[in-house]
Amino acid sequence: MPAFPSDVPFAPAIVADRDIALSYAVDSSFRPPVPADFTVVRARDEADVAAVLQEAQAHGIPVVPQGARTSLTGASCAVEGGIVLNVEHLQGIDIDPVEGHAWVGPGVVTAELKAAAAEAGLFYPPDPASADTSTIGGNVATNAGGLCCVKYGVTADYVKALEVVLPGGARMRTGKRTAKGVAGYDLTGLFVGSEGTLGVVTRARLALLPAPEPALTALATFPSLEAAVGAILALRADPHRPCLLEFLERASIAAIQAIGDYGFPRDCDAALLVQSDRPGHAAEDVQRYAVMLTAAGASEVAVADTRSEGELLMQGRRMLNYALERKGNRLAEDACVPIARLADFVHAGQDISARTGIEITLSGHGGDGNLHPSLFFDDEPGSWQRAEAALDQVLQAALDLGGTITGEHGVGTQKRRHLVWELGAAEIARQRAVKAVFDPAGIMNPGKVY
Amino acid sequence: MPAFPSDVPFAPAIVADRDIALSYAVDSSFRPPVPADFTVVRARDEADVAAVLQEAQAHGIPVVPQGARTSLTGASCAVEGGIVLNVEHLQGIDIDPVEGHAWVGPGVVTAELKAAAAEAGLFYPPDPASADTSTIGGNVATNAGGLCCVKYGVTADYVKALEVVLPGGARMRTGKRTAKGVAGYDLTGLFVGSEGTLGVVTRARLALLPAPEPALTALATFPSLEAAVGAILALRADPHRPCLLEFLERASIAAIQAIGDYGFPRDCDAALLVQSDRPGHAAEDVQRYAVMLTAAGASEVAVADTRSEGELLMQGRRMLNYALERKGNRLAEDACVPIARLADFVHAGQDISARTGIEITLSGHGGDGNLHPSLFFDDEPGSWQRAEAALDQVLQAALDLGGTITGEHGVGTQKRRHLVWELGAAEIARQRAVKAVFDPAGIMNPGKVY
Repeated sequence: MPAFPSDVPFAPAIVADRDIALSYAVDSSFRPPVPADFTVVRARDEADVAAVLQEAQAHGIPVVPQGARTSLTGASCAVEGGIVLNVEHLQGIDIDPVEGHAWVGPGVVTAELKAAAAEAGLFYPPDPASADTSTIGGNVATNAGGLCCVKYGVTADYVKALEVVLPGGARMRTGKRTAKGVAGYDLTGLFVGSEGTLGVVTRARLALLPAPEPALTALATFPSLEAAVGAILALRADPHRPCLLEFLERASIAAIQAIGDYGFPRDCDAALLVQSDRPGHAAEDVQRYAVMLTAAGASEVAVADTRSEGELLMQGRRMLNYALERKGNRLAEDACVPIARLADFVHAGQDISARTGIEITLSGHGGDGNLHPSLFFDDEPGSWQRAEAALDQVLQAALDLGGTITGEHGVGTQKRRHLVWELGAAEIARQRAVKAVFDPAGIMNPGKVY
Repeated sequence: MPAFPSDVPFAPAIVADRDIALSYAVDSSFRPPVPADFTVVRARDEADVAAVLQEAQAHGIPVVPQGARTSLTGASCAVEGGIVLNVEHLQGIDIDPVEGHAWVGPGVVTAELKAAAAEAGLFYPPDPASADTSTIGGNVATNAGGLCCVKYGVTADYVKALEVVLPGGARMRTGKRTAKGVAGYDLTGLFVGSEGTLGVVTRARLALLPAPEPALTALATFPSLEAAVGAILALRADPHRPCLLEFLERASIAAIQAIGDYGFPRDCDAALLVQSDRPGHAAEDVQRYAVMLTAAGASEVAVADTRSEGELLMQGRRMLNYALERKGNRLAEDACVPIARLADFVHAGQDISARTGIEITLSGHGGDGNLHPSLFFDDEPGSWQRAEAALDQVLQAALDLGGTITGEHGVGTQKRRHLVWELGAAEIARQRAVKAVFDPAGIMNPGKVY
């Protein structure tokens, strides 16, 4: 670890124990490299954040902002010679039911905010799969999505204002304190999804909605991908869109069945999980969805009679990640295509799998066109490289269909080389120039995204 | 007019007639100065836009992008020695009902997009008062609000992607073509509300919603401002928020009554117009709102039995602008405060009026905390200056209450000097640096906003 003089104001926040520090060096991405030399600072407050960014800027030290390290892309991994600036201690949930928002510290766990909002009779919709452990700072940094986006949108749709510390230690505020406001540029959207490359968010003003009803669930199975995608399109066009519309194809269903009986059928090409949480109308919605699912060609539609029956199906869906991990080493991936191209994308992935011999599952947030391909490999020499090569083809297929290389996980270190495929060199140069306005010394999360 | 060589590619788009050109020099703001020397180019297509921005950058010529010139702040007025780049000819509405969006040219009139969406069974919510004449390009440039924001939000909430031409002529795309996407910075939000200071929007991807029901209306009158604001807070907290929640105080009601009988009562301190457009539930909502309005202290609540009855009340509301204009010269203004401070803001305006002798009306989008103060003056020497001085006090009052100097009209030329009150010098310097990334020569709408 580089030695900081003991008189830096954040010295008490430095993690001295090497083993503890090591646990802050990596995130949930695959095989992140641990640098030899890095320092972990667990900021106690905004002043610590400012002091670190002042010192770092003055000495050209890289800074990696970090929350709960649930990133799947390496965005929050330590870098050589840098400071890992953990903000989990920056807590605080200040709900204003009159204005319908909350000021929230970046270290607040997503599920805690959701619970606090619920206690106030309100609702914070964003629901990344990692909600029980991920933090709001990370959600903002990656513009996190999740299971409810088909109805409620993504984190960006709820971030109304930010308090940020910039490299050098200056404080900046984005957005307004009011329901509307157009005085000057709104830089909020620029910071949401910027993966810690511009500054450190120290507080976010997040919109809250009136509480929905506990969701009711239907499960439909389909004899073909095309029928399932047709059902997705029909459900999206309903005036009362489902709050959850998850897609599983044959391989993912088999993986869930391998670990337990969650009510998924044994033999089908595709399944959709559908929910409504509309106050006073959830039951009516789910019945209508069932009719639409059947009309779209579902071979079987099961409407959960009770919330606990639906919960069992949802448990199966939530176990998918574990079920896939259990199958072996994998690249846990993320791509998004226009909804109407979803079946084409799944077929492309299956073709790539057949051609390369790499096992690939493709399931995820069907209602958004956002799938999470898993590409499996073993410990044989060359296996990982072959999976990476197949991934390149999968991402290229998403781009060819008008899609993106990442729907919700971000770029991090793992998709840096793919980013130019999507944006082109001129756009990347322009985005670097935007970064330089806020981070002229290039200390913020270097080697990530750009 | 500066002479352009006849071989510039956009030469056929130059307006040669001086009288016609003059009509493009001004917008709907008060007393805009007409420069002696300017050129009007009516772009025929994106290539014209690119050619103008290439030529302008090469020769350091200012460019003022412009649509229907409904700006109330001078944002689209000609500047000395500059090009007025009108994009009204950039048409096109390409609705994709499957993905739930439309690609729209900047010259499309807002009402035309709303009509086209309705024909497809869909809904484009943003509804600025000028919707019958304003264009989408201008709506995007100012992040236009309007009458339905309390339920549906502002233009920014619907802009998912942009195609932009930058100074020098380079094309840029922001946002994604998919429901989700986080590859690189999303610059969309930066361009929305930038008032033509960064580049020229040539196409926007706008989200469309399922069609609502034709709205039903209730009118409530109140014996005090506080009671009216209490009712606004209660209605905002309802799980099914009204789609319109307009506030009028005594002076504005009197102005409407002076021009005709639209069903507003003769003697009350404040009135609220409330609507629901919830499919299948509008009537039930409006009845519930009526109960809530009475509980909040309304002296009278009238629920329109038919849509046409409600339409008469709405006509009165829409005539307000005309009614105020008829009273005499005025500054038509725009400020926004946190909802809970709305009564404080109206009282502050009334106090300033009493203190300065300047007549001030304060009504507008109560549900957003967004009021449009009108400050009246006459042709006596010093009268306009006294109104401007009173306006300064009104805007300072909004800021003191945690508000903003503009909720939806923008800064333009008229509020440049107030912008620093709100943002401070450091933030303005930072925003200028952001502008310089896209507009290094400073040719885009100079003298506006910054």
